[in-house]
Amino acid sequence: MSQRLKLIIAYDGRPFAGWQSQANGKGIQDHLERAFKQIGGAAIRVHGAGRTDAGVHALAQCAHVDLANNRVPFDRWLPALNAVLPPAIRVLRCQHVANDFHARFSAKGKVYRYRIWSAAVLPPLEYGRAWHVTAPINFEAMKSAAATFVGTHDFGAFAARRGKKELDTTRTIRSVAVRQHGPCSTLDIDGDGFLYKMVRLIAGALVQHATGKVPLQKQAMKSSSNRTARPRLVAPAAGLFLVRVRY
Amino acid sequence: MSQRLKLIIAYDGRPFAGWQSQANGKGIQDHLERAFKQIGGAAIRVHGAGRTDAGVHALAQCAHVDLANNRVPFDRWLPALNAVLPPAIRVLRCQHVANDFHARFSAKGKVYRYRIWSAAVLPPLEYGRAWHVTAPINFEAMKSAAATFVGTHDFGAFAARRGKKELDTTRTIRSVAVRQHGPCSTLDIDGDGFLYKMVRLIAGALVQHATGKVPLQKQAMKSSSNRTARPRLVAPAAGLFLVRVRY
Repeated sequence: MSQRLKLIIAYDGRPFAGWQSQANGKGIQDHLERAFKQIGGAAIRVHGAGRTDAGVHALAQCAHVDLANNRVPFDRWLPALNAVLPPAIRVLRCQHVANDFHARFSAKGKVYRYRIWSAAVLPPLEYGRAWHVTAPINFEAMKSAAATFVGTHDFGAFAARRGKKELDTTRTIRSVAVRQHGPCSTLDIDGDGFLYKMVRLIAGALVQHATGKVPLQKQAMKSSSNRTARPRLVAPAAGLFLVRVRY
Repeated sequence: MSQRLKLIIAYDGRPFAGWQSQANGKGIQDHLERAFKQIGGAAIRVHGAGRTDAGVHALAQCAHVDLANNRVPFDRWLPALNAVLPPAIRVLRCQHVANDFHARFSAKGKVYRYRIWSAAVLPPLEYGRAWHVTAPINFEAMKSAAATFVGTHDFGAFAARRGKKELDTTRTIRSVAVRQHGPCSTLDIDGDGFLYKMVRLIAGALVQHATGKVPLQKQAMKSSSNRTARPRLVAPAAGLFLVRVRY
């Protein structure tokens, strides 16, 4: 019988083609699957809690794998995986779980962070990990606008199409915490579920609002019917972090 | 007559071969000199306050250049340079100064930071910007040992040879501030002058001391005569930051 392992994984999104397995093998999932094969010998599938796009970072992504005929003690998997993975991917925790735990289907929600750097010049060490916005940001305006996303709404206006159209675009945001530290504004968005590019579209809308370009009222959550009528600003991948997955 | 420009420059040391001009053109100085040539048309020499090794970062390096027949207004140099430099090098400030200002010879001192990450796993976003130490660190021991470096001492035991031997290895450290934030220990060392690899040798000695491997007393500042007798630990470049140059 196979044994299920739960992994908590952090990554710097810059060198990779996103979470999902790619034909060129540059997905984070590919790196993890190669690491398992290298250690355990068998081909294995890594099931993530969700995909992240190219350039998006994770502080604590979650995944599970099923180990058939596992001979490696559970406490040896973490150092073994980190020894063969590139330093931009680290397994932070690794534990044996019941076979009914599923990284994706057991998830109750996720927390995403979006970082906005508002200054004339982006410090080199922030490059690739924040959105550089040169226009002055009205932080109080951003903070109060962010609060309007909390609750259960039709977020159809804040979803990018990914081939097929989502039938139900209603999602619940539990909280949006907005903090400012010098030139850096941080949004922490805790939600039960997210549509494709939803956090980046919310961040884009909040920056449009807080820089005085397009008030949030004009970009508001309405029916999803008019979603193609309005040009929307997708905040760049570089500022987005998957903070954790709630179970 | 030429006009002198003072530059404050930040960089992520990872993609470069250090500050100094290299035959392969991968020095930070090379990138700056190419940027000036591209904008102003003429070959120009960039004079830095000091060299930093490959992989060492700068929050505020200082440099000066002499512009002959400059037709670019002073306030246009900063955006023009940043438009052509790679994002891992940014000019933070740019100002016209008197011709007797010299980035290196006018400097009164420098502040360096060294970051030590003490945990089983180094987070991917800290890779290349901290020294990963897996052995537990006694922070209080490190803090009190660090204080012994303050003052005027013969730092011969904390210098790497760079071809020629330094004749005078006496230097003055004004302060060493040691802080801890979770797994990250930070040393801020403010000194009137530094020998080659001095900060990395001090950081190495402090970690040897604070992990209980070699007490600082056994690595102490004595005459420089026995400096080759003792194996010394040079902390990696990745944890080192030039914070600022004092004038």
